[in-house]
Amino acid sequence: MRVGPLKVKAQLFCGDEAAMGPGKADLLEAIGREGSISAAGRDLGMSYRRTWILVDEMNRCFREKLVEATPGGGRGRGARLTGAGHSVLQAYRDLEHALAKASAGDPLARLDRLLRDVPLKAAL
Amino acid sequence: MRVGPLKVKAQLFCGDEAAMGPGKADLLEAIGREGSISAAGRDLGMSYRRTWILVDEMNRCFREKLVEATPGGGRGRGARLTGAGHSVLQAYRDLEHALAKASAGDPLARLDRLLRDVPLKAAL
Repeated sequence: MRVGPLKVKAQLFCGDEAAMGPGKADLLEAIGREGSISAAGRDLGMSYRRTWILVDEMNRCFREKLVEATPGGGRGRGARLTGAGHSVLQAYRDLEHALAKASAGDPLARLDRLLRDVPLKAAL
Repeated sequence: MRVGPLKVKAQLFCGDEAAMGPGKADLLEAIGREGSISAAGRDLGMSYRRTWILVDEMNRCFREKLVEATPGGGRGRGARLTGAGHSVLQAYRDLEHALAKASAGDPLARLDRLLRDVPLKAAL
């Protein structure tokens, strides 16, 4: 997330795999909203394949699946967040909120005072 | 930086250019230690070209240069951090410290409880 000129990225790892981060959190939110994995991916401008890879990574990194297919076929097809999915999304957003709050302090003010508004042109 | 399973990255931007981040902070530290831009780059396993690009980006993004060539030629050649260089490095490390402290709270504990130790094998 952004705090003025600062970009802060929080990535949660399970071994070497990225379990949760800004892109996956946005995807969870979109799945909850759209009720469908492919509609959520389309909404975020993500390829079908990429969307499913992210869902698979999340589902494999947590003790319970975060996303599950809605039971039933035909027009009832779709996906929803599980209880664990809602808990992980909420905890991640709370973490981002804590990081944003911690960013907006004296060290960033000191950096900001020294920072130009626009960089000088590249010499190299 | 890492806090248990969490990786937090703080990047400061000047317009679209990355003014300061973990790699540049490490480079500033290495330049202070080595007294030379190329020795600092070698120490971090960075190419000569990449090292100079990072120094140039930093110097163009702040109101004062962070790194300057040591006056004098021959054996006196080298580089040092300016006052602004020391200030930016310290403020960035203080910011990282504040972020690490803010990370180590309840939201991360909630995520950690739900996280597996090792991911399940990929299905895709």
